[in-house]
Amino acid sequence: MRVVVALGGNALLRRGEPLTAANQRANVRVAAEALTPIARKHELIISHGNGPQVGLLALQSAVFKEDETYPLDVLGAETEGMIGYLIEQELRNLLPDQCRCATLLTQIEVDPDDPAFRHPTKPIGPVYSETEAGKLARERLWTVAPDGNDYRRVVPSPRPERILELSVIELLVDQGVIVICAGGGGIPVIKREDGSFFGVEAVIDKDSAGALLARELHADAFLMLTDVDAVYQDWQTPNARAIRNAPPKILCNMNFAAGSMAPKVKAACEFVERTGGLAGIGRLQDAQAILKGKAGTIIRQDVVEMSWWEEKT
Amino acid sequence: MRVVVALGGNALLRRGEPLTAANQRANVRVAAEALTPIARKHELIISHGNGPQVGLLALQSAVFKEDETYPLDVLGAETEGMIGYLIEQELRNLLPDQCRCATLLTQIEVDPDDPAFRHPTKPIGPVYSETEAGKLARERLWTVAPDGNDYRRVVPSPRPERILELSVIELLVDQGVIVICAGGGGIPVIKREDGSFFGVEAVIDKDSAGALLARELHADAFLMLTDVDAVYQDWQTPNARAIRNAPPKILCNMNFAAGSMAPKVKAACEFVERTGGLAGIGRLQDAQAILKGKAGTIIRQDVVEMSWWEEKT
Repeated sequence: MRVVVALGGNALLRRGEPLTAANQRANVRVAAEALTPIARKHELIISHGNGPQVGLLALQSAVFKEDETYPLDVLGAETEGMIGYLIEQELRNLLPDQCRCATLLTQIEVDPDDPAFRHPTKPIGPVYSETEAGKLARERLWTVAPDGNDYRRVVPSPRPERILELSVIELLVDQGVIVICAGGGGIPVIKREDGSFFGVEAVIDKDSAGALLARELHADAFLMLTDVDAVYQDWQTPNARAIRNAPPKILCNMNFAAGSMAPKVKAACEFVERTGGLAGIGRLQDAQAILKGKAGTIIRQDVVEMSWWEEKT
Repeated sequence: MRVVVALGGNALLRRGEPLTAANQRANVRVAAEALTPIARKHELIISHGNGPQVGLLALQSAVFKEDETYPLDVLGAETEGMIGYLIEQELRNLLPDQCRCATLLTQIEVDPDDPAFRHPTKPIGPVYSETEAGKLARERLWTVAPDGNDYRRVVPSPRPERILELSVIELLVDQGVIVICAGGGGIPVIKREDGSFFGVEAVIDKDSAGALLARELHADAFLMLTDVDAVYQDWQTPNARAIRNAPPKILCNMNFAAGSMAPKVKAACEFVERTGGLAGIGRLQDAQAILKGKAGTIIRQDVVEMSWWEEKT
């Protein structure tokens, strides 16, 4: 079975935890432990988020005026290095010596006319108070938006159209190599009129990039792993129910939290409807159980009706 | 022919130039233009330095206390992302669509007992006055050392022993993919007693890592490209002469500037003596000419005597 996994930012950094290298490594180790059983049995391709990391690097990059602030494509490439390295190292340490891993920088083409460039929605970096956020918006020409009770910087999140390194990823997967790629949703690039590619100031949604990757690689399963155990209907209401199985046609017409569950559900439905494969959403620790339908929310074409986890209602 | 190229820091950032993303991209474009003719005709593997970049990221990383300073292995991984991305993008833009490129994160094993850990020698980051350098050394527990008339931070530069991703690099090269790897000399890792790998605070010399890569890949040629047109005998004296051809046995017993030409000459001689291949040292713009023996300094086993570039003496 060919399995594409998208590791959520919240799976790599617990909410509220400082973004130290040690914290990242500890969380990555938990992720590697959860993925090892899948790596031993299946073809595995891992992508990951980078929201907190790219935000931190953007702040650091703005500190020394003489070096200017680096654009988001370059910072995104840096996070692919940072996070990809930690994932590869921790995974490699848990697998037999003969297992081969590769972390590939990945550029993903986006449409320069994507409306996302005019309406930034993707939160990156730390949270700020309303006053701080207002000040930063004025000083740095950032767009900021509410995130819970706080504010965060938001950047354009265009739709991923094409993975430039796809044929290389495919080559490696076909040869049994575990591939870590499309980190942070991939480095966003546009095709210019002369046919050349150039990086743009954006952060692609990692679940959307993961779905594209899973589709293009003809994956059998696409798992989005986070810190929530399932997709909840009526989330944060007394009627909240954890969805066990769902056909994409029903699920894609339901309402979920924008910026967190909604993009995951959309990515899952897109993947399932286009490929007939299985999509799963749930906790990182449950990765293997989700693949077996024993945890999380499973989205598949051949499911006729919605069902819920009884014990969790 | 299989060609491994090591791009010097001075080839990617001109001396004295501010380390902006735009400057890096402009220099990378020049490098890509110089390498395109080789990429079209030969198997090409590209490694690169990261001295200025890893130093800048180390400074930036120390700015926010809450996020702590990141260790050099993680920062090195970030520079592999940053620089690798720019090289891949610019190279891809100059090559036909069907050419495949891959930028691979690369971990390189070093010996935890390497004496380099007790004697840091590798300069990273910007230059400081003696007073500034002394202050930084006290405050941040850095080792600093003179670099020309200034001072720079120096870090351990252990000898590279083994490339963890070698089999994947080989697989890609065999399939005709242009591979960018071992950036910044590779991410330095040690093998712990339990057999697991862990990153260490060091920066491997890129020429030494490039020589290991060239040797392990059984390359026919190993080029070290920088901003100097050749290896000079009696450099900075009235007798300075640009070496055209040299047998490794003679060259390796001559004296060159520590930290700049000496490690290049050492890496060249090691590669040539162990493999019988050709090593070349010279200007980035002359890459193709060096490969043809028409520029730079060529080191090969079958050369019996030293020769010099007449017009340059």
